[in-house]
Amino acid sequence: MTYCVAIKLNAGLVFLSDSRTNAGLDQISTFRKMIVYEKPNDRFMVLLSAGNLSISQSVREILQVERLKDHEADEGTTIWNARSMFDAARVLGSAIRRVQERDGAALKASGVDFNVSLIFGGQIQGEGMRLFQVYSAGNFIEATPETPYFQVGESKYGKPVLDRVITPTTPLDEAAKCALVSMDSTLKSNLSVGLPMDLVVYEANSFQTDKVVCIDENNPYFKMLHGSWGQKLREVFDSIEDPMWHGESTNVPLMQQSTRSLPLKKITTPEEKLI
Amino acid sequence: MTYCVAIKLNAGLVFLSDSRTNAGLDQISTFRKMIVYEKPNDRFMVLLSAGNLSISQSVREILQVERLKDHEADEGTTIWNARSMFDAARVLGSAIRRVQERDGAALKASGVDFNVSLIFGGQIQGEGMRLFQVYSAGNFIEATPETPYFQVGESKYGKPVLDRVITPTTPLDEAAKCALVSMDSTLKSNLSVGLPMDLVVYEANSFQTDKVVCIDENNPYFKMLHGSWGQKLREVFDSIEDPMWHGESTNVPLMQQSTRSLPLKKITTPEEKLI
Repeated sequence: MTYCVAIKLNAGLVFLSDSRTNAGLDQISTFRKMIVYEKPNDRFMVLLSAGNLSISQSVREILQVERLKDHEADEGTTIWNARSMFDAARVLGSAIRRVQERDGAALKASGVDFNVSLIFGGQIQGEGMRLFQVYSAGNFIEATPETPYFQVGESKYGKPVLDRVITPTTPLDEAAKCALVSMDSTLKSNLSVGLPMDLVVYEANSFQTDKVVCIDENNPYFKMLHGSWGQKLREVFDSIEDPMWHGESTNVPLMQQSTRSLPLKKITTPEEKLI
Repeated sequence: MTYCVAIKLNAGLVFLSDSRTNAGLDQISTFRKMIVYEKPNDRFMVLLSAGNLSISQSVREILQVERLKDHEADEGTTIWNARSMFDAARVLGSAIRRVQERDGAALKASGVDFNVSLIFGGQIQGEGMRLFQVYSAGNFIEATPETPYFQVGESKYGKPVLDRVITPTTPLDEAAKCALVSMDSTLKSNLSVGLPMDLVVYEANSFQTDKVVCIDENNPYFKMLHGSWGQKLREVFDSIEDPMWHGESTNVPLMQQSTRSLPLKKITTPEEKLI
């Protein structure tokens, strides 16, 4: 599996991906899942991919040369001349459909789903930043202030902390920290997600970034974050009182049945009916 | 969906379940997923269920009358006369197979998987406590000191905190608190899991418990835990430094590329080859 997350803030964009790929438990490899497309002063785009590796590699290869034509005489839209991120996402969708046309039937005949999930975001000169999640069928959705982040792959372990922290006004480096905590929780509980990870932080209207880093177990910041988060989480956990059941303490709220709740079903003899 | 978790400690057992059931998003109901079977001074057992509600309700009904016979002349083992939790789990497996025989073919014809996941644990006079996860096929696995907890249903959101806290020596009420934090994270991020929840805490060798509570949004302890955990988690998050990229500070470890890592793939012109 994989875990990728991207966040759209007023201040910029954050992209984070792991690099573990597995075909069964006995075939685990490292493949990077992030690519940056950059034309200084014109466009800055990042693609994150999860799902079948042969499909996502083909999509990335074809995306470089894909021309989307709305009319026959059209010169064609590419990710390099698209005038909006929306159009660039359409080119990406078209590249996915191209791979589907080529490989879909053969994959289906082998019992393999056409499964790829992509996150594609960035900024093109003339409009604001945009962030899309692109599905296997080439259709896509766009992040909004209400839902400012997308995840693909093993998304559940790391979702609670994103839900607690991220809003459009979250500062850029704080969001990067949040993405790393989200990844840390995922690494903790799921073997199919693994280091190194790639992190890109993009500042709005800069059309380039030097905040690009590959993080392995020796990265000083991630080592600190991993250790501090685990230890402080434990301290917070310990600082919350254990439940008290029978009024042993007056300081701790009681673990008390609400008067409106029905009692739990308890069966005490073999003959007792369940319902 | 559902979220249930059960933990086996040296000191006892903790069981926690939510009560949301949904058949599509427009058909959400409340069904309790926990049943206690108790014969004072003889046996104490708890069953938690996830999966297809019609199957789990049938299993629970049949479990009351199921007799497992290893020989024809056998009187038959029931959950009420089983001499070990292992045998009681076998009776449960047999009840699942009974439902499969009755309903499996018709469900399959309607395109419905025979999907049920159960957690079954407790103690029978004469042996220690035991905890099992029981699958749709009626087979089961048992918790061990290395893996002292089982989850069924929407298990991923709440797994990291269990992995961080639970060991066999964790005190009983602390484990109950951990299960509630695990549930709180799940409630936060998944609509298909909902209040009220049922919590049972069982002390080893007691063969009964009065620590049984149905927790809704008015429960004083859960209200405190929910508020404190969210707020303190946020404080911990804020207390960890944001990443520093270019040595602005000497106190914070730098977000620095490891010298052994390969640089991220960056494509800067349409002509550039991907590989």
